[in-house]
Amino acid sequence: MNQKLRIALTPGEPAGIGPDLAVMLAQQVREFELVAIANAQLLGARAEALGLPLTLRKYDSSQAPVGDAKGSLCVLDSALDSPATIGHLDVRNAAYVLDCLQTAVEGCSENRFHALVTGPVHKAVINDAGIPFSGHTEFIAEHTGADPAMMLVAGDFRVALATTHLPLSEVASALTDEVLERVCRILHRDLQSKFKLAEPRILVCGLNPHAGEGGHLGNEEINIIQPVLERLRAEGLQFEGPLPADTLFTPTHLKGADAVLAMFHDQGLPVLKYAGFGSAVNITLGLPIIRTSVDHGTAIDLAGTGKIDSGSMQAAIKLAVELAGNRLAS
Amino acid sequence: MNQKLRIALTPGEPAGIGPDLAVMLAQQVREFELVAIANAQLLGARAEALGLPLTLRKYDSSQAPVGDAKGSLCVLDSALDSPATIGHLDVRNAAYVLDCLQTAVEGCSENRFHALVTGPVHKAVINDAGIPFSGHTEFIAEHTGADPAMMLVAGDFRVALATTHLPLSEVASALTDEVLERVCRILHRDLQSKFKLAEPRILVCGLNPHAGEGGHLGNEEINIIQPVLERLRAEGLQFEGPLPADTLFTPTHLKGADAVLAMFHDQGLPVLKYAGFGSAVNITLGLPIIRTSVDHGTAIDLAGTGKIDSGSMQAAIKLAVELAGNRLAS
Repeated sequence: MNQKLRIALTPGEPAGIGPDLAVMLAQQVREFELVAIANAQLLGARAEALGLPLTLRKYDSSQAPVGDAKGSLCVLDSALDSPATIGHLDVRNAAYVLDCLQTAVEGCSENRFHALVTGPVHKAVINDAGIPFSGHTEFIAEHTGADPAMMLVAGDFRVALATTHLPLSEVASALTDEVLERVCRILHRDLQSKFKLAEPRILVCGLNPHAGEGGHLGNEEINIIQPVLERLRAEGLQFEGPLPADTLFTPTHLKGADAVLAMFHDQGLPVLKYAGFGSAVNITLGLPIIRTSVDHGTAIDLAGTGKIDSGSMQAAIKLAVELAGNRLAS
Repeated sequence: MNQKLRIALTPGEPAGIGPDLAVMLAQQVREFELVAIANAQLLGARAEALGLPLTLRKYDSSQAPVGDAKGSLCVLDSALDSPATIGHLDVRNAAYVLDCLQTAVEGCSENRFHALVTGPVHKAVINDAGIPFSGHTEFIAEHTGADPAMMLVAGDFRVALATTHLPLSEVASALTDEVLERVCRILHRDLQSKFKLAEPRILVCGLNPHAGEGGHLGNEEINIIQPVLERLRAEGLQFEGPLPADTLFTPTHLKGADAVLAMFHDQGLPVLKYAGFGSAVNITLGLPIIRTSVDHGTAIDLAGTGKIDSGSMQAAIKLAVELAGNRLAS
């Protein structure tokens, strides 16, 4: 591949560890161009707080992407509305966080960037600023007109979710035929198109303990999950299940599977994050752009301390580069 | 410890892999006495099917327990109502399964056995025989007048459940203040008394994703879990949480914790069984007796084939011996 990749990075909340992660990433030699869409002064100050070298290079969309030496980072400078203070949330900077994100999403949509990697944002402070915002995924879906689905990845272990951020009491009624089939199709399509898995094999969890035990522990498997999977299998797609989650998520069963579809958040993510050991990546499926993300929050208390693990961010960048490379090659 | 242990084993369903597991256990030298409460002829026939040596020694309650050589097993012979056929369930033998279990529970209650290890039973065939039976745990609880709770163990990783076998749609309403406090107290008491952990440190999951995210994703953390944990902490007990399940179940957080209390089946068991890699043990807490169990079913199709993994049964025996030893020593 001769063309270098250009990956957009939004560090997210300026008071949190996002800027730390950007500075930490800059300490590695890169073959691709990583463009931090952030306030340049903020990044410089955070590097100083961390005692790390940082040379910022201005982003120039008219030039071809180039790699960077250790300590150097390309930046698309974005104005803060108020100086950022480490560890102190400030509603005045909520608009900045979303401006950076919007610049990144537009750049990806217009093919100036090959992928987007997002750092953590703080939903509550954005809402407190009077801006309706329910998360990166929803924001990006709205700005790209897409129908998203959530998947977490740790190496070859991939877990997508049929339902995401809902109170547990609402999960069963949210799992409709339409919702399940939609997520199944997005997952299957993106494993093919983004992950280059020609015939992905997907294991599907039941909703209830023991996958409902033949109707003794719930009927959603019989009424919803089985019929949807049968329709998909009739098309030749490899969906197996519904299987009991505590059987499916054992190393023997996972062997040879390309992804698991869990029915809800806490059925699938604890085991993925346990297995991922701090390097799980969140990827939004169903988008026209490639977007990966850290799997953790803003960790306000740890900003500027140097006591953070950049494993998830490193893995998010690595996956974005891999998927963007797949797309360029196809 | 001079006194040898006497451990009761109920292989369970005669058509399934339980008898296979008993024969496989007999292939190891034992310091303790393992008493299979089962039909002697069935065990002999299964050993033959597996091509394994088996010498049965008749159980004698008037003698002190003794260990066994490789290939030898102590048996408390119990009559089948119909000859057992490998792989074929027979309602006529449902009473036999429960008779064996009752003999074992009585023996434990009367201190003739130091612990009980149960193989898998087949609930549906027992029910089809017209006998109301909802599981080992409930049966033993009823026969010992106890209030049970379920925990799975894989090495030092222990996960107890606040609610167990319920359709997912019923979980949120089943999690009351009373239920949670009861399970917390049973778990704490048994970690002290059975596991000899003087001041157990217990991590408690939230019910909702992200432990409810401050009420944005459900209120059970605020209304139920937090108040219960605060009461327990006020007594000096070490309960931490409610924590997001996908944060809590990471190696960093689990370090130094003695157990996790998950709010429901599929929040806790997939990760435990993933980590346990085929050697997870089910233990019933809150009973006056020690009871451990395999974490799998009867696997009717695999009975007599020799193609089974005895890991969970081996681990169930090991844990029963350990806990019975703890009790003798105290």
